Amino acid sequence: MELFFLGTSAGVPTRARNVAALAIRKRNAKAWYLVDCGEGTQQQILRTPLSLNRLEAILITHVHGDHCYGLPGLLSSASMTGRERPLTIVAPARIRAFLEAIQATTGLHLTFAIDFIAVEDLAEPLALPDFALEAAALSHGVASYGYAFTERGVERKLDIAGLEAAGVTRGPLWGRIAKGEDVTLDNGSLVISDDFLLSQRRARKLVVGGDNDTPALLDELCTGADVLVHEATYDRAVVERLGTDNQHSTAAAVASFAQHKGLANLVLTHFSPRYQQDPGATPSIDDIEYEARSQYRGNLFLANDFDLYRLSHDGVLTR
Amino acid sequence: MELFFLGTSAGVPTRARNVAALAIRKRNAKAWYLVDCGEGTQQQILRTPLSLNRLEAILITHVHGDHCYGLPGLLSSASMTGRERPLTIVAPARIRAFLEAIQATTGLHLTFAIDFIAVEDLAEPLALPDFALEAAALSHGVASYGYAFTERGVERKLDIAGLEAAGVTRGPLWGRIAKGEDVTLDNGSLVISDDFLLSQRRARKLVVGGDNDTPALLDELCTGADVLVHEATYDRAVVERLGTDNQHSTAAAVASFAQHKGLANLVLTHFSPRYQQDPGATPSIDDIEYEARSQYRGNLFLANDFDLYRLSHDGVLTR
Repeated sequence: MELFFLGTSAGVPTRARNVAALAIRKRNAKAWYLVDCGEGTQQQILRTPLSLNRLEAILITHVHGDHCYGLPGLLSSASMTGRERPLTIVAPARIRAFLEAIQATTGLHLTFAIDFIAVEDLAEPLALPDFALEAAALSHGVASYGYAFTERGVERKLDIAGLEAAGVTRGPLWGRIAKGEDVTLDNGSLVISDDFLLSQRRARKLVVGGDNDTPALLDELCTGADVLVHEATYDRAVVERLGTDNQHSTAAAVASFAQHKGLANLVLTHFSPRYQQDPGATPSIDDIEYEARSQYRGNLFLANDFDLYRLSHDGVLTR
Repeated sequence: MELFFLGTSAGVPTRARNVAALAIRKRNAKAWYLVDCGEGTQQQILRTPLSLNRLEAILITHVHGDHCYGLPGLLSSASMTGRERPLTIVAPARIRAFLEAIQATTGLHLTFAIDFIAVEDLAEPLALPDFALEAAALSHGVASYGYAFTERGVERKLDIAGLEAAGVTRGPLWGRIAKGEDVTLDNGSLVISDDFLLSQRRARKLVVGGDNDTPALLDELCTGADVLVHEATYDRAVVERLGTDNQHSTAAAVASFAQHKGLANLVLTHFSPRYQQDPGATPSIDDIEYEARSQYRGNLFLANDFDLYRLSHDGVLTR
């Protein structure tokens, strides 16, 4: 699994960081998925190998502009460059109203169908082509959601011991069973291929939070997760100085949750523009990292625009 | 007068060109004006000395997304960075509906008032702080407008011969008249300063067209203009191959109009992404230039993103 960060700033873009967007795909796959779509996401995409025509689904966490104002332009550009395949959008219901209003007032005409799924109605996991998608409601003033991606289609291998124990003789039949075909033996008995195909490994799971002041709301979604991507808009010192967290999380709150939950990998993003890149500045992005490390002993990253992360089969995340 | 091109692509952004936006200001002034605001305009602004807090007015030519989808994010960012001064927006009435729909569906809250003026209702020239603004309706399927900026506050000097002929004796009174003050002479007669202040030069005039398939609709607006900025989305060869001009202008049509009108400076912009930067490519951006030069013998430019043009007091445009 791969994660491309396309925007890592909170609220407003900076010269170094665009507003929120994250691309997810299976390693080197053409098909991909987009979580959030702040203004300028389509311009960021032009600087990656990702194609709008191979975008399988867009997931929006909430309706604030820094997470959705890039949606009309991205859909418009996909139309102008010839997309015809339907596109799934999973988002709070207000995003549907937003898109309908844009279409009504600006004459936006799409060349493809939108399969819109209101996340409020997502009771069962949604089977996307590469992932099973689940969602959890968060706390942020407007309806905000976190999404879990559990990979589908994990490689399987023949259960040789099982086949031998069941008396299925080694030969061409084994090849057909390995391809997922149910076969009938000479003695008339049916062999169900699923019974003799073992998953070679655990399906990986990635959780991406929306804006949220209560990380523990992701507790259930994070069970069995390999990676949590979550906003860390401020550190505690800045929240104390501002007198409000604006319904966002501090680095400490997210890191403490990830430590408590035993998550192996944590990626922080969505940093207030007040944090400067220069390590000597006040406040510096290093303050966020320092605060997170004080609470979390796992594999920690602070995302930058155009960072590419790879999650290995055994759950190790590397940049 | 200065022109900063912030976006010069038609329809969709490319790696080299963002979608439409043009900043205008008096030379080295802090106050500035924005014509059109395609997605990503606020990100382009971050790469210039322009400040959202000193933006005096936004003029939108028409409601197509590549000319207005950057508006919500720009207004949101101006709010988040503390703007309180009201902002004038002159635009087709549908832009008001677009902004109201965005505010209603995404909870966009602005910290400043919008003084919205529907361009359809603009009967008299509008006095902006630095320019008198006029508009003309164009032809593009949706309501599209061109804008003329005529500079205000041109430097004036005392009409010494006139003062002497009127019997106003040289002295401190001249200084007061020079500052625009009406003064009463010892003999009781009133001297109106405007009668004795001569403009040192002609007010410069800049015309910026919106998307438009009929350049001649700008004829009246272009009378006395120093510069015309107009879209040249295609050259004729591409229009013939496409079988349609999509209600845009060819380089030949705009250049021919500018030649006929005797305009000294012509800047073409809003190029279809099919035109490549590489001179050897087909079609190349050079095809646009070659076609325009075949029709126009004035001072011709093809705009690039981040080009800065200066118009001198005597009407010479340089990049």
